[in-house]
Amino acid sequence: MEERDIGRVVAFTDGVMAVAITLLVLNIEVPDLPRTGEGRLGEELVDLLPSLLAYAVSFALVGRFWIVHHGLFEDLRTFDGTLMVLNLVFLALIALVPFASQLFDTYNEEPVAAAVFGGTLGLAALVNAAMVSHIVRRRLTGAERRWPEPFPGAMALTLAVLFMLSVPAAFLSLTLAHVLWVLALVVRYPLHVLGGRRG
Amino acid sequence: MEERDIGRVVAFTDGVMAVAITLLVLNIEVPDLPRTGEGRLGEELVDLLPSLLAYAVSFALVGRFWIVHHGLFEDLRTFDGTLMVLNLVFLALIALVPFASQLFDTYNEEPVAAAVFGGTLGLAALVNAAMVSHIVRRRLTGAERRWPEPFPGAMALTLAVLFMLSVPAAFLSLTLAHVLWVLALVVRYPLHVLGGRRG
Amino acid sequence: MEERDIGRVVAFTDGVMAVAITLLVLNIEVPDLPRTGEGRLGEELVDLLPSLLAYAVSFALVGRFWIVHHGLFEDLRTFDGTLMVLNLVFLALIALVPFASQLFDTYNEEPVAAAVFGGTLGLAALVNAAMVSHIVRRRLTGAERRWPEPFPGAMALTLAVLFMLSVPAAFLSLTLAHVLWVLALVVRYPLHVLGGRRG
Amino acid sequence: MEERDIGRVVAFTDGVMAVAITLLVLNIEVPDLPRTGEGRLGEELVDLLPSLLAYAVSFALVGRFWIVHHGLFEDLRTFDGTLMVLNLVFLALIALVPFASQLFDTYNEEPVAAAVFGGTLGLAALVNAAMVSHIVRRRLTGAERRWPEPFPGAMALTLAVLFMLSVPAAFLSLTLAHVLWVLALVVRYPLHVLGGRRG
Repeated sequence: MEERDIGRVVAFTDGVMAVAITLLVLNIEVPDLPRTGEGRLGEELVDLLPSLLAYAVSFALVGRFWIVHHGLFEDLRTFDGTLMVLNLVFLALIALVPFASQLFDTYNEEPVAAAVFGGTLGLAALVNAAMVSHIVRRRLTGAERRWPEPFPGAMALTLAVLFMLSVPAAFLSLTLAHVLWVLALVVRYPLHVLGGRRG
Repeated sequence: MEERDIGRVVAFTDGVMAVAITLLVLNIEVPDLPRTGEGRLGEELVDLLPSLLAYAVSFALVGRFWIVHHGLFEDLRTFDGTLMVLNLVFLALIALVPFASQLFDTYNEEPVAAAVFGGTLGLAALVNAAMVSHIVRRRLTGAERRWPEPFPGAMALTLAVLFMLSVPAAFLSLTLAHVLWVLALVVRYPLHVLGGRRG
Repeated sequence: MEERDIGRVVAFTDGVMAVAITLLVLNIEVPDLPRTGEGRLGEELVDLLPSLLAYAVSFALVGRFWIVHHGLFEDLRTFDGTLMVLNLVFLALIALVPFASQLFDTYNEEPVAAAVFGGTLGLAALVNAAMVSHIVRRRLTGAERRWPEPFPGAMALTLAVLFMLSVPAAFLSLTLAHVLWVLALVVRYPLHVLGGRRG
Repeated sequence: MEERDIGRVVAFTDGVMAVAITLLVLNIEVPDLPRTGEGRLGEELVDLLPSLLAYAVSFALVGRFWIVHHGLFEDLRTFDGTLMVLNLVFLALIALVPFASQLFDTYNEEPVAAAVFGGTLGLAALVNAAMVSHIVRRRLTGAERRWPEPFPGAMALTLAVLFMLSVPAAFLSLTLAHVLWVLALVVRYPLHVLGGRRG
């Protein structure tokens, strides 16, 4: 497989992620007021703030996944069928995020909605980690590959752990689940134990 | 036509396929509950599982078509008007998949809905096979072209046969149609008779 | 402006056109049947055939515009602000096609809907012709540029004439307007008078 | 980070902007007439003119942002994490424009809707200016970089000032806010004071 073809896989990936991240905006619905006046619209817009926050968090999380994916493919020299399939599964999960985000926003006090949101992102992170593992094992980058810091595999595993923990956590306390998501958003260094797996 | 222009055809193709594959998520609708509580949302989400399955199968099938298309264009050296038109017809059929998928998901016990879904993908596979045939006959790849295994043309014909068979099969038994689709998803080696057509 | 930057203009253009052409599918609505059975769905799908035809025609016309645009930018060596603005106006008109197509499909016996559809594509063709004229006058391609046959400018003007004629024609006879659109779809050689303008 | 990776950031950016700019068309809704005839559709289409104008203005403004972004990344030689994050925040704001545009179009006599629209674009311009400032300070372009005229940073700041002024202006007079937006659309040279900041 030549350079142009890796470029095509990357372009398709970026296309799906760009569409998915932009579709998130469709979840913020313009208020439907029978008649306006007396500041009613202003109040309605204030009621939209949780939706805006859900949009911001979902956008940031998909964006973070995109950055991790970017670091992962940076020096890829070749590609195989397994990586192609893993990448498609990853994309199918990312393309689900607009649904999961809308579910979580519509039912923001229901643990099961938060669990679906966290689980979708957790599965995406797991598949991401599987991609790193496959790339390292099959040496799909050149031999001289110097992995960027933080190592994408440890990063993906860290994200997977945080999101997967948020699934049961949601049933204990929604706040705990939210804390885990914010952690997934801001964590800069992978968990130490996982960091030790670096190839 | 220079390299950049083939790249542009490929980029447009990837763009349409990326949008079509991501629009599939719009078919999974967030449940609309008048009031929640008592696990109602959980039940509703379980009712969404067939929709999720339809999403997964449609995503995988469009993804498989993308891989076949990718193998087909890998070493393309030049392009002509006929290939451009065939490619647009192929894209028009792929862009129909979100509709066909939603139809099949909404009416999952109606043979005619399954027939439309299978027929749309069958036509896409036929056009794909016509593209391979055209590329081979006009030698649009360089002379030194070594076709990947499995040969994209035999693969496209195999997919066409499976999907086209699923159209009448749907009226006999929906299960039979579903089996043919799963076969189309997992078949690794083209049917032997078709494999023999390799140029 | 370097090669990469022309590539970026082209990528943005392809992105907008790919999204617009794929959004056309949203105009084909899955029938909403209270209860199915007794071949009701089959009848409803037959009623969708005009929508499918509108989809096919709109897809083919946007596809044709894409091919003309592709021929136009093939050997572009540089870019200026005017061309950038013209290209954006062109894209704004192409992005309107899903709306115009849905309007024409919903009100397929109303001359004014057909006029809006024809007028939108006619304006897009006019802006396309203006882009060719600008490229030729400012010599934005290299001096050695050999224009492809048929000359994109004559082609764009031919499309503009056909679509613009379809606006008043729609008020005389819808069939006449449809004939002009089909002509715009299949015409291979630009009208002779316009062909003579080749630079 | 190599050339291909900057290309990927740019491709993702273009993808998000292309999807966002094309989604604007979804705000123009095809009229829903119980029965047609007697020129009713024509009247309804005339009533759509403000929506079309909102579409045109929003499309042009996002287009202008794309041109500014294009000028900004033209000669970028490298990339860092901060620029990546700033770029994602910029994209999250651009992806909000279809919502803000629909809000402003639906409630076109409500100051708060205009303020949200102006504020969204103003924040996008501010982040854009922060990106320029970061690129200049960290010398992320080569040393030999000759900034295009007008300097993207001054341009972004000018846009930020105009849009931010339109937020309070909307509560004084909607016309004043509209004038500021049109100014943002047509201004060719950055405000002088800001132009003096050029590095």
